[in-house]
Amino acid sequence: MSSTYLEFRSDNCGRAAPELIEALVQANVGSVLGYGGDEHTQQLQERFSTLFQHPVQVFPVPTGTGANALALAAVGTPFGAVYCSPEAHINTSECNATSFFGGGLKVTPVAGIDGKVDPLALEHALSTSGKGQAHKNQPQAINLVQATDMGAVYSVDEVKALSKIAHANELIVHMDGARFANAVATLGCTPAELTVKAGVDILSFGVTKNGGLLTDAIVVFNPQIANNIGFHLRRAGMIWSKMRFASAQVLAYVQDDLWLRLAKQSNAAALTVAQGIANLEGVKLLAPVQANELFVEMNPKAIDALIADGVLFYRRGTNLFRLVCRWDTTQNEIVQLIALIDRHRLKI
Amino acid sequence: MSSTYLEFRSDNCGRAAPELIEALVQANVGSVLGYGGDEHTQQLQERFSTLFQHPVQVFPVPTGTGANALALAAVGTPFGAVYCSPEAHINTSECNATSFFGGGLKVTPVAGIDGKVDPLALEHALSTSGKGQAHKNQPQAINLVQATDMGAVYSVDEVKALSKIAHANELIVHMDGARFANAVATLGCTPAELTVKAGVDILSFGVTKNGGLLTDAIVVFNPQIANNIGFHLRRAGMIWSKMRFASAQVLAYVQDDLWLRLAKQSNAAALTVAQGIANLEGVKLLAPVQANELFVEMNPKAIDALIADGVLFYRRGTNLFRLVCRWDTTQNEIVQLIALIDRHRLKI
Amino acid sequence: MSSTYLEFRSDNCGRAAPELIEALVQANVGSVLGYGGDEHTQQLQERFSTLFQHPVQVFPVPTGTGANALALAAVGTPFGAVYCSPEAHINTSECNATSFFGGGLKVTPVAGIDGKVDPLALEHALSTSGKGQAHKNQPQAINLVQATDMGAVYSVDEVKALSKIAHANELIVHMDGARFANAVATLGCTPAELTVKAGVDILSFGVTKNGGLLTDAIVVFNPQIANNIGFHLRRAGMIWSKMRFASAQVLAYVQDDLWLRLAKQSNAAALTVAQGIANLEGVKLLAPVQANELFVEMNPKAIDALIADGVLFYRRGTNLFRLVCRWDTTQNEIVQLIALIDRHRLKI
Amino acid sequence: MSSTYLEFRSDNCGRAAPELIEALVQANVGSVLGYGGDEHTQQLQERFSTLFQHPVQVFPVPTGTGANALALAAVGTPFGAVYCSPEAHINTSECNATSFFGGGLKVTPVAGIDGKVDPLALEHALSTSGKGQAHKNQPQAINLVQATDMGAVYSVDEVKALSKIAHANELIVHMDGARFANAVATLGCTPAELTVKAGVDILSFGVTKNGGLLTDAIVVFNPQIANNIGFHLRRAGMIWSKMRFASAQVLAYVQDDLWLRLAKQSNAAALTVAQGIANLEGVKLLAPVQANELFVEMNPKAIDALIADGVLFYRRGTNLFRLVCRWDTTQNEIVQLIALIDRHRLKI
Repeated sequence: MSSTYLEFRSDNCGRAAPELIEALVQANVGSVLGYGGDEHTQQLQERFSTLFQHPVQVFPVPTGTGANALALAAVGTPFGAVYCSPEAHINTSECNATSFFGGGLKVTPVAGIDGKVDPLALEHALSTSGKGQAHKNQPQAINLVQATDMGAVYSVDEVKALSKIAHANELIVHMDGARFANAVATLGCTPAELTVKAGVDILSFGVTKNGGLLTDAIVVFNPQIANNIGFHLRRAGMIWSKMRFASAQVLAYVQDDLWLRLAKQSNAAALTVAQGIANLEGVKLLAPVQANELFVEMNPKAIDALIADGVLFYRRGTNLFRLVCRWDTTQNEIVQLIALIDRHRLKI
Repeated sequence: MSSTYLEFRSDNCGRAAPELIEALVQANVGSVLGYGGDEHTQQLQERFSTLFQHPVQVFPVPTGTGANALALAAVGTPFGAVYCSPEAHINTSECNATSFFGGGLKVTPVAGIDGKVDPLALEHALSTSGKGQAHKNQPQAINLVQATDMGAVYSVDEVKALSKIAHANELIVHMDGARFANAVATLGCTPAELTVKAGVDILSFGVTKNGGLLTDAIVVFNPQIANNIGFHLRRAGMIWSKMRFASAQVLAYVQDDLWLRLAKQSNAAALTVAQGIANLEGVKLLAPVQANELFVEMNPKAIDALIADGVLFYRRGTNLFRLVCRWDTTQNEIVQLIALIDRHRLKI
Repeated sequence: MSSTYLEFRSDNCGRAAPELIEALVQANVGSVLGYGGDEHTQQLQERFSTLFQHPVQVFPVPTGTGANALALAAVGTPFGAVYCSPEAHINTSECNATSFFGGGLKVTPVAGIDGKVDPLALEHALSTSGKGQAHKNQPQAINLVQATDMGAVYSVDEVKALSKIAHANELIVHMDGARFANAVATLGCTPAELTVKAGVDILSFGVTKNGGLLTDAIVVFNPQIANNIGFHLRRAGMIWSKMRFASAQVLAYVQDDLWLRLAKQSNAAALTVAQGIANLEGVKLLAPVQANELFVEMNPKAIDALIADGVLFYRRGTNLFRLVCRWDTTQNEIVQLIALIDRHRLKI
Repeated sequence: MSSTYLEFRSDNCGRAAPELIEALVQANVGSVLGYGGDEHTQQLQERFSTLFQHPVQVFPVPTGTGANALALAAVGTPFGAVYCSPEAHINTSECNATSFFGGGLKVTPVAGIDGKVDPLALEHALSTSGKGQAHKNQPQAINLVQATDMGAVYSVDEVKALSKIAHANELIVHMDGARFANAVATLGCTPAELTVKAGVDILSFGVTKNGGLLTDAIVVFNPQIANNIGFHLRRAGMIWSKMRFASAQVLAYVQDDLWLRLAKQSNAAALTVAQGIANLEGVKLLAPVQANELFVEMNPKAIDALIADGVLFYRRGTNLFRLVCRWDTTQNEIVQLIALIDRHRLKI
């Protein structure tokens, strides 16, 4: 075992961007009304309406799970079904918070590749969903994870195509943007093009994984679907009384494109790793590397050797592991990682 | 209307203690495991076990509502009843989060004065609760707000007496300590004496109102009742992935008795106000001022005049209002407030 | 202890009307579609639309608790408040099913006498409810128990007055008609006058207590509020696959005014008891006897003696007990009961 | 379209066994305590303890969905996972009642054939379930549908093998016995051999589909897991006040082996159909016919022709349909059905 380590476990293992902490210092002046009645929260509404070229409502919430589950619960009925990819975070990693907050709302995976919902699979699921039959959870929303849980990114056209199917079937389009910044950075589009202009109704806007501390946010594009979301959030214990300290973070996060700069750093790190290992014998990437995650197949012994050498990551199977780059992943970490993979990859 | 104002709306309108923000800066070093697997969170367990002279588990959570509702849900059954004072925050101000998280858990007020649960009223409620009858929510917990929602403080003996009744009836004792620091500061006892030694099983440990930013905490004294609380919290979207930034705040909060110093400041401010107005004709205090809140009765016109002069507070009725002092309430604010009350109190 | 007994515990201790069982025999012919797709259920819609002089939807459900909780959950939001009398069945005797099905929906008692909601108390509660404040459960429905849980009956004008307040505040009017037949029989009005014409939006239509076996029903007058109720019921496991056997019972129950004849019998029995004991020294009736229930105060020893002599009833306190008459309570039972009360009433 | 029809839609389209209605007549004598405090319900406990050669608790409930969802909710935690076959009724046809009653309890399909849970797939699911990780629903129960939703039957040894895996992993074994009688009749084993002796902890005991009217039942073999089930049922509005009429049905159902005689009739009908069509060109049975259901593949035009000729059934796809035989399916219906299938099967 190495005495040092290389950190590739998760982007949530990383530091906060100093700009966000500095924003807390700046916000810590005077007294303001609680529960979102403050000026920072007001500014946040305006800032995001500009950012998304659309009048939006923004609700800072503590976690991405909270954002996803509350967004889906607030727009739906307790007998609804939410369609997502099998790998979707709401399906695999949130202790079924969506069903809990949604009062039985059913998380329903449909097939796809690279962590995406496949349009044909979605249409098939909808056509056999039993709409109007009380035995069946009624189609209500789709959940698109952007970037996906396999490290890929939906193109704007892919989002549009899925939104079109969804809206034709009266479904809400929810985007789980835990890594939304990474996707925007990769695509080079505007935030608006990837969301409201592509049919997204409500967005979990990730901050934590990309330099945040303790807040993410829900962004509502379609006010008709979410006019009660404040009550849902309050009942869920998710409205901070000292909201200014959350709103100030989110404001700082998008100030001067900080969020995109940070995402470009983690994306670039992942791409460098990908390029360094993609063509090595014994190494296989499971999905295109379009954000800051890599899913890598190698021989079990090779993976064991990486672990023994102090590389930190999550193993997803005997011959599969995930690598995640942070906004502050260093060039040195990347170089060492590639070298270690290269050294061990053929171990059997 | 005055061009300036005096802030007495709530302690959550106030600033964060700079020490807590500084702790974020200090914690923002290196990479650590997410979801509480970090060193700060580990230290927090040890620090609080020392603070409470008992091996405890500590779970930072975003809000007091989250702390209360999750604590009560995690220790109980969905057909339980939680006894509290009519004024209790869980009964009046949390959008029934306790019933939501508790799956129908019933919040059941019992009479009392000054925001306290009265022991005789509790015993009467228990004796007529229908224990064992499926029609009736089964007695499960008591909820003691400390300091109370009327600004009073339970003595250690009062907590003990209520805990004794609770435990004799197999109830869990939950303390809503949104203003726990204020109560400890007033009583001059140890945190342990007011909780685990007095029979408290689980505590919502308030930070936000007393200099915190975005975190409170649940403290579990009795591990048997809450061994699943981590799952409850995860399902509720209340476990931050970057937990170190919450734990570091809570650590800083209790470092060198900061929490007690801050509470003493707001308590002293409230006491000064109380002493300044208590004996004025036309002014009546509804409850003993033992923490940082005052409930004041005056003529409606007198209250109107205070508002017109820029005093910010929450009116609770035509002739009733609440004043809350913050850790950073200034002497100047206090003096001006007393003067304004004195000036307007006899208006009719 | 007497070797025989007099049954005054509850109307649910009584027999089913033979007509309802005969209806099961009649319905047991041929094969029909399940889950309400049968002819009896279709007829039920038509029959009740005639009965209530209004196009209604009828949903047979297994229990009154199911009817109440589902009706209230289906018309509301999970952050709503339902106002009811303190004695209301949903508040005292249904294990908080309303909050469970309603996802945290809050049952909120307002004062009144004889088990009724007092209009002034309701208006006060609404004016202080915090409408629009996320901390507070939002006013959503009123629950009127007809006949009340104290054995009284709302007049048509009383229902109208409460409905007017409710609708002026955008609340739904729910009537818990577990003893609806008793109320209609007492008032001599039409079912429509007491419900849809008086502003009731949704009714729990009681059958069980008045000669039914295993079914009650929800009657929806206002389809806008309950267009999803079928999904709520299915998710709650409350739609029988062999629905015809429930619908046939309900049809038989209203056939040829059977329901009113049965209710008149139990009402008359209760009135006879009331008249027999009302003026006796040592006996006090707590509320007007307008349906089939009596709430009687006597000395504890006198109550003890009744019990010892084999009178079956529920004691509600040391000096308070409830008597309920059934549709099949006999003249003999009544005469014996009055005689025993007369014999024991002055025991001390 | 034929002017007559052949009924093969569902066993819940059929009649009730006259013996069960007669039991209602017999039970309709005198007054008894409500909510299960009656003699029939007491006898039911004894009768089923004899039937299952084990002291059991029996709870009549209105529907199979209620039985399944409440059984699973009552034995578990809200962050649990229930493993079942993809075709399991709780997964496909109960509007996610299990997640609703279970407060987010996750229904988790694992692969298998003929509607069964495959032992290896279960072991794989358990080994990758993330036990102890708060992100993941914690393994809690398995759900075995007997007979399966594909018309097959688990052998006693198959149940034992799955129970062994379940218990080794501290999971509860729940059997959805909506067609339990059909399974017992097919296997020729005792009810005990197929349940408590094979490791089943709690059983949804089906009555409705096999000659019942309005009740099914939950049978608890392991009292430690379900000591609170009465409260769960009351909160769910699933305890009838006039319980004797439910218990009397269930008693009559097992009296003199009525349940097995009825099941043998529907099983025999299905087998006759199966034998009549199994070897016909153009006809394919999807699963072994071991109970009273058949899943048949034919050309779409052939299926259209059956429909046009008045055969009633549920189509499950363009070339797939389900046939269900009832206890009172007639020889004539069978003969006609086989003839019509034979006539149309080669249509293209």
